Amino acid sequence: MVTADEPETLVRFGAAVRSVRIERGMSQERLAELASVHRTYVGSVERGERNISLVNIARLASALGIKTSELLVRTEEIAERQA
Amino acid sequence: MVTADEPETLVRFGAAVRSVRIERGMSQERLAELASVHRTYVGSVERGERNISLVNIARLASALGIKTSELLVRTEEIAERQA
Repeated sequence: MVTADEPETLVRFGAAVRSVRIERGMSQERLAELASVHRTYVGSVERGERNISLVNIARLASALGIKTSELLVRTEEIAERQA
Repeated sequence: MVTADEPETLVRFGAAVRSVRIERGMSQERLAELASVHRTYVGSVERGERNISLVNIARLASALGIKTSELLVRTEEIAERQA
């Protein structure tokens, strides 16, 4: 059940992070600061370049003021719009 | 916004995986096979010992027949019951 879709999952997750961040009017720098991660890390996550861990998913969600599950719902909505 | 709660997040995620797996009547071996991960990896995830990546979260969710977001909802429900 490994799928060729895995890079797309990371890209969609990154797009969801970016979308919520922009809705909040938050810069990458501010998100990085609130989530205690490096600014360049936020950029690479938003571009889907990182197979991000659950701890960092939870940090970003918390910094964005959204539940982790909601951030994944946003990710799935992007997939559905692309389907 | 790093919290001391991070190990608990992994433990709750693992408990959610185990709970859904048992609901499905699925062994760790079968879940590992469907998700293309090692059997001992499933055990360590269920014990909250792994800071699991998004790709592996998606693999486990897919193998369990549940959306990734739903698996995180289950994780959050465990946190709420503990609160």
